[in-house]
Amino acid sequence: MKVRLEKVKGTRDLLPEEMAKRRWVFERIREVFERYNFHEVLTPTFEYTTLFQLRSGEEVVEQLYAFDDKGGRNLSLRPDMTSSVARLYVNSFQNAPKPIKWYYTANMFRYEEPQSGRYREFWQAGVELLGSDKVEADAEVIALFVESYLATGLEDFTVNIGDRVLLDEFAKMLGVEDDVGLMRLIDKKDKMSREDFIAALSDFGLDEEGIEKVLSLIEIKGKPDEVLPKAEELFTSEEAKAEIKRLYGLIELLDAYGVKEKILIDLGIARGFDYYTSIVFEAIAPNDLGIGSIGGGGRYDNLIEVFGGKPTPATGFAIGIERLIPILEWKGLIPKPKLRPDVYVIPIGKEPELKRAAIGITSSLRRAGVKADYELTGRKLRKALDYAGKLGVPYVVLVGKRDLAEGKVTIRDMESGEQRAVGKERVVEVLSELLRA
Amino acid sequence: MKVRLEKVKGTRDLLPEEMAKRRWVFERIREVFERYNFHEVLTPTFEYTTLFQLRSGEEVVEQLYAFDDKGGRNLSLRPDMTSSVARLYVNSFQNAPKPIKWYYTANMFRYEEPQSGRYREFWQAGVELLGSDKVEADAEVIALFVESYLATGLEDFTVNIGDRVLLDEFAKMLGVEDDVGLMRLIDKKDKMSREDFIAALSDFGLDEEGIEKVLSLIEIKGKPDEVLPKAEELFTSEEAKAEIKRLYGLIELLDAYGVKEKILIDLGIARGFDYYTSIVFEAIAPNDLGIGSIGGGGRYDNLIEVFGGKPTPATGFAIGIERLIPILEWKGLIPKPKLRPDVYVIPIGKEPELKRAAIGITSSLRRAGVKADYELTGRKLRKALDYAGKLGVPYVVLVGKRDLAEGKVTIRDMESGEQRAVGKERVVEVLSELLRA
Repeated sequence: MKVRLEKVKGTRDLLPEEMAKRRWVFERIREVFERYNFHEVLTPTFEYTTLFQLRSGEEVVEQLYAFDDKGGRNLSLRPDMTSSVARLYVNSFQNAPKPIKWYYTANMFRYEEPQSGRYREFWQAGVELLGSDKVEADAEVIALFVESYLATGLEDFTVNIGDRVLLDEFAKMLGVEDDVGLMRLIDKKDKMSREDFIAALSDFGLDEEGIEKVLSLIEIKGKPDEVLPKAEELFTSEEAKAEIKRLYGLIELLDAYGVKEKILIDLGIARGFDYYTSIVFEAIAPNDLGIGSIGGGGRYDNLIEVFGGKPTPATGFAIGIERLIPILEWKGLIPKPKLRPDVYVIPIGKEPELKRAAIGITSSLRRAGVKADYELTGRKLRKALDYAGKLGVPYVVLVGKRDLAEGKVTIRDMESGEQRAVGKERVVEVLSELLRA
Repeated sequence: MKVRLEKVKGTRDLLPEEMAKRRWVFERIREVFERYNFHEVLTPTFEYTTLFQLRSGEEVVEQLYAFDDKGGRNLSLRPDMTSSVARLYVNSFQNAPKPIKWYYTANMFRYEEPQSGRYREFWQAGVELLGSDKVEADAEVIALFVESYLATGLEDFTVNIGDRVLLDEFAKMLGVEDDVGLMRLIDKKDKMSREDFIAALSDFGLDEEGIEKVLSLIEIKGKPDEVLPKAEELFTSEEAKAEIKRLYGLIELLDAYGVKEKILIDLGIARGFDYYTSIVFEAIAPNDLGIGSIGGGGRYDNLIEVFGGKPTPATGFAIGIERLIPILEWKGLIPKPKLRPDVYVIPIGKEPELKRAAIGITSSLRRAGVKADYELTGRKLRKALDYAGKLGVPYVVLVGKRDLAEGKVTIRDMESGEQRAVGKERVVEVLSELLRA
């Protein structure tokens, strides 16, 4: 048996500093989710593979971690949360009062090539709002999306809004049968040069006029007040006009939420998955790290029905944590976590009464809410002090025989090297005061 | 394609109320872990299967969720965290200052028969302390184990301590070659009747005298001060004497931590896994739910070496969240989570200015830290009020045309039905005050 003692390609270990930063980011986002009255749910890490096949785009299905369990069930690790949440809704919540507002923070799995900000196991913080087809629901979700990033301190970002109805209408205008194929192509526009994009459109079967139209569609990108009138010019059908009106309504509501300045319209956005039905959106934060979208979402009014439920409109988003965190780090927005104790207690010697006293002090400190540690390796005083120094511990408590005989211990300020004897029963009080200062 | 629209056997969905309670439990435990200066890490959900085979007992290997990924790697979902943490240590932390104190809260996967408090995906909160062979390290970890349960409000529980060295010595005394087999058998004693246990010992090959000795070993169970002297009588070898001395030392330190009253000695405990080398322990909380151990751990001084690292002593524990929570619930120890907004804002009518005003108020409330919601479905006033009533929302803000023309909105106390008009700009202030009261 050749034992593999490294982690699996595309996965990574999260060490204490990274974990603490991550927890900080999750908490900032969770606080906003909660204030918006979304409630947390969690579904199993794996589901029947067919569940994911039913909904997801081809690409996602190809990337599934699928396997047979010991009972012969074909299962897959979740590639995203929306399918599982839809299943949960269909199973148990069809008759619950609407709207349902759920959020999650969970890990997903996709077998794709690792690259900057992309891992085979990655985390998302997301919401799903089920049961309202109103543009108010889109606005609520997009406002929350914006405020989630703002809560992490990020300011330099935009939320770019596209629309699947308009893309559909556009495909009709062009006389394209394979509208999904066209959307996929348009969705990838930012990943290729203009020349390659034009060549791909030509390969797809568009003539020069068609290509021109696609190029003018993807030009509809900018401040809503500037580009929505252009969209009104490009589109002629009733369906398109109605959807553009919906977009105007959305922008007005987002203005009421106070987040309009973060919004751009970008009609070239399709978002990878095939199940979106109307407004779609993604967040972009300019960076030097090669990281594109840091999250996205949209309305999916057909999915619940596809999953066998009563037709139920829905909208939601997911924030990509592995894509957001490097940008926050790069901007210095995450506070440096404190990964050392405030107090380190060292018994000077091996006598049981010294250890007892040292443990007693450590326990009292901890009970008072002080992060305290106690020397556990039996090393000599000098080495123990070296260790405390390396960790950057501000205060050390030395528990020595002579002090103890007088009911005292010594507090050492590790920065100044200053030491002072303190009555054993006053240690917690004195240290709490020093740490507050 | 037959689509399976239910969750997979042995897994479950965590709904908002459950999730909120769970988060409460995790937070209580995490706070104690942090105060003890343990730091959070997280490893990938899957590893090379060989990693788990290297360490775990036979039973665990049989229960692995193993599969080949698309790159032909044989992987498994982690059945516990210790193997992954040991790999992480060997990969990157062998030269870090000791001791290393890590904790995790994570999900594990085992294909076993679902039963009370047992799922195929389950969560653990645990710690690993690497780099100290001193009994002080065992005491620190066991004290933390006790305080973790106490932090959840649980008081009626014991931590039962056994010892693998003594079990080993015991097997030698009996002349048993298959000491691991004997330990497994002894470990299962609580799952069978006395008669079945005696029959199993006989099948294992023990004569009457041997069976008698095993029965007297498992009788060494009770308060440390009462049963450790019995152990001194039963064991004669130097190794056993030294280990009993270690246990005496442990109990003395645990007394200094103030947790001795929760400790029992139970020399019949082996703990499932084969890698423990000295002190082992588990927590038991009497209950009517058929739930046995709610967590356990022990010292594992050989594992790092087995994993190709420099010999490094280690000790740790894991708390079984799916086993703990039902007991906490049964005792009513988890606060009921608040799953509704404090304020629900309803525009009375479809006019854009009403919606704008309603959204503006909702946003201001949220920014002030109030959990506020806004009517998103476009339903009529009466239905919206019904919904708010069903949810138990204490205050509703009604945004009507006439009020608004005077710069006012109406606050309705949902319990008393009382309504009062308030200046728009004073809503946040007034509601914050009402909610504080």
